[in-house]
Amino acid sequence: MGNGLSEEPTAGTLQGTLHRLPVRVYYADTDVSGIVHHTNYLRFMERGRSDWMRLLGFDQRSFLESSGPDMFFFAVRSMSVEFLKPALLDDALVVETQLTELAGASCTLGQKILRGAETLMTGQVRAAFLGQGGRPRRLPAEMKAKFAGLVPATMSL
Amino acid sequence: MGNGLSEEPTAGTLQGTLHRLPVRVYYADTDVSGIVHHTNYLRFMERGRSDWMRLLGFDQRSFLESSGPDMFFFAVRSMSVEFLKPALLDDALVVETQLTELAGASCTLGQKILRGAETLMTGQVRAAFLGQGGRPRRLPAEMKAKFAGLVPATMSL
Amino acid sequence: MGNGLSEEPTAGTLQGTLHRLPVRVYYADTDVSGIVHHTNYLRFMERGRSDWMRLLGFDQRSFLESSGPDMFFFAVRSMSVEFLKPALLDDALVVETQLTELAGASCTLGQKILRGAETLMTGQVRAAFLGQGGRPRRLPAEMKAKFAGLVPATMSL
Amino acid sequence: MGNGLSEEPTAGTLQGTLHRLPVRVYYADTDVSGIVHHTNYLRFMERGRSDWMRLLGFDQRSFLESSGPDMFFFAVRSMSVEFLKPALLDDALVVETQLTELAGASCTLGQKILRGAETLMTGQVRAAFLGQGGRPRRLPAEMKAKFAGLVPATMSL
Repeated sequence: MGNGLSEEPTAGTLQGTLHRLPVRVYYADTDVSGIVHHTNYLRFMERGRSDWMRLLGFDQRSFLESSGPDMFFFAVRSMSVEFLKPALLDDALVVETQLTELAGASCTLGQKILRGAETLMTGQVRAAFLGQGGRPRRLPAEMKAKFAGLVPATMSL
Repeated sequence: MGNGLSEEPTAGTLQGTLHRLPVRVYYADTDVSGIVHHTNYLRFMERGRSDWMRLLGFDQRSFLESSGPDMFFFAVRSMSVEFLKPALLDDALVVETQLTELAGASCTLGQKILRGAETLMTGQVRAAFLGQGGRPRRLPAEMKAKFAGLVPATMSL
Repeated sequence: MGNGLSEEPTAGTLQGTLHRLPVRVYYADTDVSGIVHHTNYLRFMERGRSDWMRLLGFDQRSFLESSGPDMFFFAVRSMSVEFLKPALLDDALVVETQLTELAGASCTLGQKILRGAETLMTGQVRAAFLGQGGRPRRLPAEMKAKFAGLVPATMSL
Repeated sequence: MGNGLSEEPTAGTLQGTLHRLPVRVYYADTDVSGIVHHTNYLRFMERGRSDWMRLLGFDQRSFLESSGPDMFFFAVRSMSVEFLKPALLDDALVVETQLTELAGASCTLGQKILRGAETLMTGQVRAAFLGQGGRPRRLPAEMKAKFAGLVPATMSL
């Protein structure tokens, strides 16, 4: 690049406790009914969660590649989603992500996909904390401290 | 084929009100954590719903390609899923599908993914009935009659 | 299953050196232009190659999970594909797979996707033999012996 | 957004005849062998081609939704790709796209995926120009004029 612009893909922005990630709809995201296939909204949501982690300073790949007690990854345990309005080819969307609950071995994130001011879908995703061999474990300490500061004040830990 | 075997892909079996579809896990279904990516279970569930419709005698493509008042398709409106145990590369799974509720402009299906006797995930999927321009409509009459016979007796229509 | 039917997903049939796998087109395979998205034909081709291996008696997961010198997997190194006619929602397709060339650290497969007598696409896929850490290696001996018997006679090894 | 930043997803940059699009690798792009699944590089390439069109000022959705002689879309007719080095979870990649050949009813694009200075894959993609009913057609005039200026000088039209 001769023009000094960064070419790093955006990881969105974190404003207070709310993460926002811009996402574009491409051909591969759509289906024959003319709109985004319902499973692909869930892929957009995953990108939001991943970049939220990235902006918090956590490197998921190094956790995943660690051995022994440092090995750590998230696994989606349950999700509940409402599809309100369809997204179309070429749409510019925003994925919103926010931590809503933190428990000993899992957390819950509230997510939305928007097109401008319109909410296209909403979802709650519960992710378990897993280690070596897929066994449940507690959050790494640094992550726990950071997460605790992101849960709305009315939530009890 | 010189051997007289049918090469039609299976659409599973319908036993009473329960549809069962065998599904294989391939490389493209997995992710770097070593298991099936959570969105791909939802693709398996879609195959189950599609083949359940096929065995009931309905041709989704001809409904989708119809014009005017005959145009008809389903759109997933909401889903709630629990991921209980992971599926792995090469696993032979079964997707179970059953109609659990029938309303004027939508229905709800209960689905499970199993590996042998183990339940790997469960989900409830509400699908809206849509027509021309994505507007809500009632079920085509023949479909309504067939669906009504498949809802457990305790459900009111 | 009370009816004695096997519910194992089909792995297709191997007739001489030609493997044939039936595949159904579902919503998730299509895009807004109304046909199967070009990358999804390549997923169908992968299913063909995987089930060809399965019918030859090789268990890709156990090779992948082995440690040390037994660890083994295939990686696509190059492919060349022609998309001749589109496939549509609900189409019943067949993926044909055949070994066309065997070299020290890679092999080439010729593949086709058909709908009845029509050829929808053709492709050549070269797969490298990789081991621990993604390093090139030779084929496991038993696999080499079996592969050698499947290459057309005019090919030199 | 209170901070005045644009949240439009990037469409990359066009420098002379070369388009560059930054792309991030997420979980859904990887497979159990630990790297990006080969079909997902092709999805990244599609994003590059789409955003190249966008920066040239063409709106694929409005062409696709047009009726009669204005209806227009691209369909991939053939592709030839080399996978040189694997991409991993969280990698920041760049997709390069360049028009290399322009014919009456199709064009060829040369594409690369890079991670910093490393080339991970290269590909040539031939796209046909299609209209109503998927019939071959000529490029819309404005597009033809713009494309002609982007083909390397040594190519004859």
